[in-house]
This record gives sequence, C-alpha cells and structure tokens, in this order.
Amino acid sequence: MSWLPSLHADTPEEGYEIAIKLSRMAVKKTQPDDNARDRMRPDYANNADSLTQVSLVVATNFQTVAKANEYWKT
Amino acid sequence: MSWLPSLHADTPEEGYEIAIKLSRMAVKKTQPDDNARDRMRPDYANNADSLTQVSLVVATNFQTVAKANEYWKT
Amino acid sequence: MSWLPSLHADTPEEGYEIAIKLSRMAVKKTQPDDNARDRMRPDYANNADSLTQVSLVVATNFQTVAKANEYWKT
Amino acid sequence: MSWLPSLHADTPEEGYEIAIKLSRMAVKKTQPDDNARDRMRPDYANNADSLTQVSLVVATNFQTVAKANEYWKT
Amino acid sequence: MSWLPSLHADTPEEGYEIAIKLSRMAVKKTQPDDNARDRMRPDYANNADSLTQVSLVVATNFQTVAKANEYWKT
Amino acid sequence: MSWLPSLHADTPEEGYEIAIKLSRMAVKKTQPDDNARDRMRPDYANNADSLTQVSLVVATNFQTVAKANEYWKT
Repeated sequence: MSWLPSLHADTPEEGYEIAIKLSRMAVKKTQPDDNARDRMRPDYANNADSLTQVSLVVATNFQTVAKANEYWKT
Repeated sequence: MSWLPSLHADTPEEGYEIAIKLSRMAVKKTQPDDNARDRMRPDYANNADSLTQVSLVVATNFQTVAKANEYWKT
Repeated sequence: MSWLPSLHADTPEEGYEIAIKLSRMAVKKTQPDDNARDRMRPDYANNADSLTQVSLVVATNFQTVAKANEYWKT
Repeated sequence: MSWLPSLHADTPEEGYEIAIKLSRMAVKKTQPDDNARDRMRPDYANNADSLTQVSLVVATNFQTVAKANEYWKT
Repeated sequence: MSWLPSLHADTPEEGYEIAIKLSRMAVKKTQPDDNARDRMRPDYANNADSLTQVSLVVATNFQTVAKANEYWKT
Repeated sequence: MSWLPSLHADTPEEGYEIAIKLSRMAVKKTQPDDNARDRMRPDYANNADSLTQVSLVVATNFQTVAKANEYWKT
C-alpha cells in the first residue's frame, strides 16, 4: 500500500491532513530512524519559531493539495 | 463540525481570516497542548523576525484562499 | 470599513502597496499592541536579514495581488 | 543518461521521489564532494529545524512535479 | 513617474531586473533612510546565507514578472 | 550576449541548469566582487543549512523554468 495513493481529498480538512502527511514524509525520508525523530520532538514542539516553519511547510503542501482538488469548489 | 468546512469566503478580509486559521492549525496539530502554545506566545509576539515569519505563512495560505475564491473578482 | 475591501489595484505600484498592507496585517493581528510593534521597529529596520525576510513576505503577497489584477496587462 | 529525463511520474508517491531528487541535486551541484556531503549528514539529520527546511524544499519541488503530472487526477 | 509603471519586460533579462527592483523596494519602504541601508550593505553582501535569502526574494518576484510576461514565449 | 536570452530549455535537466543560473545571478548582482564571493564559498558549501537554503532558491526558480517550458510534456 502506498503512503500517498492519491492527492484526492473529499473535504478541505481531509486535504489539510494530506498536506501534513506530505510535510512529515520528507522528514521521515531524511531521518528514517524513528527514535531519532522522537528525540527531536521536544526541540520543535516547544519552540515558537520552529512551529512557524512547520506551518510554512504545511501551507506550501496545502497549496498543492488544494489545487489538486480544485479548491473543493464543485 | 469541521474546523475548515470550506475555503469559500465572501470577502478578501474574510479570506484573510481563513488564511490565519490555516496558519495556526498546523501549529496546533504539531503542539496540541494549549498551555504549551500559550507559554510560547510572548516568544514570537515580541520578536520582529518571528512575526515576519508568521506573516510569511499567512501570505502563503492567503495565496491558496484567494485563488480558491478567484480573487473575489466576480 | 474593511481594511481589505478588494484586491483590485489600478496600477502595479498600487498593487504593491496592497501587498505591503497584507504583509503588515498578519503582524498586527498576531501582536495587536501598537506600542509593542513600535518598540520592535528598530530591531528589523536596522537588520539586513530581517529586511530581506520582510521583502520575501511582500513578494509572496505581491504574487497574489498581481495575479488578482491579471498582471495589469489589459 | 540524464539524472532527470522527465518530470513524469506514474503515481504521487513516485512524484514525491522526484521532488526529493530535485531537492538533493541542488545540494550536490553546490557541494560536489561526496565526502563533504556525508560529513554534514549528522548535522541536519539530527536537527529538527534543519529537517523542517529540507521538507520545505521538497514541498516546493513537489508543487512543480505535481503540476507537471496534472495532480494524477486523470 | 511611478517606480513600477508596468510589469512588462521585453526580455527575460530585463524581467529579472524588475524582479530585483521589486525585491529592493520592500526594503526601502521598510527602511527609508538611505544611510541606514548603506550601512547595512556590508552585512549582507559579505554573508553567504544573507545573499542566498536575497536570491530567494528575487526568485519569488521573478516568478511574478515571468508570468506577467507569459514567460517570453511568444 | 544576454546571460539569460530565454527561459527555454530542451530538457528538464537543461531547465534545472537555468534555475541554478538564475539563483546565482541574484547573488552576483548583489555582491559583484568575484573574490568576495569566492571567499564565502566554503561558508555555505560546508554548511548543511546553507545548502538547504540554496536548494530552496533553486526549487523556486525551477518552478518558473518548468512552467515556462510547460513541464516538457509535449
């Protein structure tokens, strides 16, 4: 089973979840060690600037997902 | 009730509010602890560079919302 | 009166001013205290990297405004 | 054989791999020394903010690849 | 005379110059003091990371200008 | 002879080279002194975060070049 079978989302909220998944996958593929990623979690989850950058990545991916779904307009 | 039922906004100003909501939601989903987020607030609300980065995230999300609403032209 | 009644601009220069307004509004909504924002002004107005990031936000918003106005082509 | 014969990808997941390849190639072309790049790996693979920035680059390239493939919709 | 009468450029190179102008204007409007900007010049002109960020702003504005000119295709 | 006669590229790989050229040109125009740029090279070529940012600039320019070439699809 693919981790990304499609960019299709039934709703904007579901599309946002795909954007988050896309954002995390690049991290996972660069640092595949689950423990290493877990150890870093407090570093960014408690740092305002880190969280803002995470949000920038999600925003960039959400642009892609929203466009793929034609902004859920129809 | 979905936190993001639609990207539709009647006005640019309302669309900007959706962009802010999108920007904050990625932070909330990465750091779900309300108290933790509240504690970080002074860190970025009193730092010029942090605020600029927040504005970059909002700008990126506003691109999405504005396009979804065809720039409110018609 | 809305702070953003429309993305329409008669000229590119006027559109650029809207992009600046959009960029500042996210800061204002995150730090609504006028005095706090004024105190931070020397921090970024005298720092080259801060100014570059401000310019990145304006560039991102100008993409939106320029597209909304079809690049003032017609 | 070109390292980038095409932006075509049969699936979103394959497209994501192209986005990662695009992201790494700019690094490789700027620092062609394999050993130098290997030495830096622990620096970013164990730093949350570095990984977030890597993810931003992948997200930017994924926008390109997804659009090239018309979002795999048809 | 407007500093930005149009986004039209006859050639890609001329379009790139407009992108640079757009990038600098946001800095100028945020720090209107010519002397202050001149004093900061060595800070970013001799710092690799600062120059990379400057290039990111220009790239973002060049996207706008290139699109406005339909990529000089015709 | 213009340094950028056209955004046309016969292949994605050639388009990627144009994106790199675009990325470097903003640096060159901001710091025209060849020696100064050469002195900075080790600073970013041996710093993972610097290289990631370089890759972000290339990704942004590659979006432009890829679109100008209609993603080399036809």
